[in-house]
Amino acid sequence: MPVRLDVPYKFVSEFRLNKVVIFGVGLIGGSFSLALRKAGAVGEVVGFGRSLTTLQQAKQLGIVDRIGQDVAAEVHDADLVLLATPVGQMAELMVRIAPHLGAHTLVTDGGSTKGDVVAAAYAYMGDKIAQFIPAHPIAGGEKSGAAAALAELYIGKKVVLTPIKENSIESINLIRAAWVACGAVVSELTAEQHDEVFAAVSHLPHLLSFALVHDLAQRQNRDQLLSFAASGFRDFTRIAASSPEMWRDICMANRSALMDELGSYMQELETIHTALSECDAGKLQEIFSLARAVRGNWTQQ
Amino acid sequence: MPVRLDVPYKFVSEFRLNKVVIFGVGLIGGSFSLALRKAGAVGEVVGFGRSLTTLQQAKQLGIVDRIGQDVAAEVHDADLVLLATPVGQMAELMVRIAPHLGAHTLVTDGGSTKGDVVAAAYAYMGDKIAQFIPAHPIAGGEKSGAAAALAELYIGKKVVLTPIKENSIESINLIRAAWVACGAVVSELTAEQHDEVFAAVSHLPHLLSFALVHDLAQRQNRDQLLSFAASGFRDFTRIAASSPEMWRDICMANRSALMDELGSYMQELETIHTALSECDAGKLQEIFSLARAVRGNWTQQ
Repeated sequence: MPVRLDVPYKFVSEFRLNKVVIFGVGLIGGSFSLALRKAGAVGEVVGFGRSLTTLQQAKQLGIVDRIGQDVAAEVHDADLVLLATPVGQMAELMVRIAPHLGAHTLVTDGGSTKGDVVAAAYAYMGDKIAQFIPAHPIAGGEKSGAAAALAELYIGKKVVLTPIKENSIESINLIRAAWVACGAVVSELTAEQHDEVFAAVSHLPHLLSFALVHDLAQRQNRDQLLSFAASGFRDFTRIAASSPEMWRDICMANRSALMDELGSYMQELETIHTALSECDAGKLQEIFSLARAVRGNWTQQ
Repeated sequence: MPVRLDVPYKFVSEFRLNKVVIFGVGLIGGSFSLALRKAGAVGEVVGFGRSLTTLQQAKQLGIVDRIGQDVAAEVHDADLVLLATPVGQMAELMVRIAPHLGAHTLVTDGGSTKGDVVAAAYAYMGDKIAQFIPAHPIAGGEKSGAAAALAELYIGKKVVLTPIKENSIESINLIRAAWVACGAVVSELTAEQHDEVFAAVSHLPHLLSFALVHDLAQRQNRDQLLSFAASGFRDFTRIAASSPEMWRDICMANRSALMDELGSYMQELETIHTALSECDAGKLQEIFSLARAVRGNWTQQ
């Protein structure tokens, strides 16, 4: 297990979870389990899910040791519970697990939005609220499901923790250490900051990519149009092949911040439309030049 | 040289150009020359350009045999003249070359827009108008310049010819055969169709990508925002690193069709904004699902 300097040493060198329970053994949950196993940082992993087929597949793939039967019993002696289901299912899970959590059991999640998850936690975690540490691993893509899970998925990827005021330093550090054991780079934001940031750099681009393909998809000549699309179109629309259900939920969960970003972007397009209609080539060049300079300097971290 | 069935056999099997003159020995012009050479389809290549340094580099790289000195003399006995400069410089070149073209000399171009190039040809090619066959090789990217030129650039790539009514079948087929010799797949559209198609699948996506990065670039917290951007952002904004000058010219040259596309897209965003503000999750899912289905079925040809 690599030692990361941004985590207190004792949390890394001595870090080991005896039992982890994962709800949702797809790409996010499955990769978390495989990464912990590879790091030798976990004893037993128990999986729950809505599809028995997926759970059986997860067991065959070595993602879980056991398929859970009794939620109350399994979460009671777990060190860590990961909610890796779609965000829309988390409130119900919180209701089911909260009464049965052991005193030392910590709960975290893998949701792409945080304001809604934190609100659900306050509503449904009851007196176990301090044991819930919200998190967002920035990984994934168009692929999903247990078969897509990889022990290496999180290596070098960012995980954002959005701790709440009830969380102890120790519990935050334990979640941090679990993600570090998976190879991730962990940072912290408030849930509100998180949702604003990801509305801008992730949720809006997804929306815009879906919108472009949808706009073309409705044309009578769409086959002709698409036959001339090339590598620029390919990259711009790669994320339009993402899960409609997942992105519907993300957009709804983060709709306030997303509407702000969409509004700002529509103003930007108004400016460009005006520049075109006024033949203002200088304005276009100014916009393109700043964009190119900033994009050229950006490197994925 | 591979034989393509979409070109009459005699134009491929016997195809050889004795002399080609290229204005602009960058990515497009340089790769055309290297590809023809590799196919054994050209005798001599003469290059013209605005930068002596670039021309000398092109000579060192084996792109041209000679750096041209006298435009009139060089184009007079050429089989083919390629205008591979930015579109904004083509009108001036047409004025310079038209009076000196030999009776058998054909002229083509590599511009990304066609309506403006055809208009320039009608204005400046005079009684040589039939000798100008407009074309658009769909290749390139963020890289440019002679050093980026590749003999393999056009293999499997589309080249769109937009012939005018004055062109003879023979002259169109010769240009077609030259591009086939480079490995390209050649198709035909009218200039108007071309500009509408590429406004939709290329020019608009570039505009939208530039606009997103520009929108974020103006924020006080842009460094924080960009530090959390991941692979979705990376691919969506790859084309925002393209040349501002080139895309300014393309947008201005094709502004009518591009404004139509931008208007249609802004309506699409209005629809999505309304769905968000009305919490209409079903509408979002409908949009995302159609987009995913169409994007999922699309493969680059």
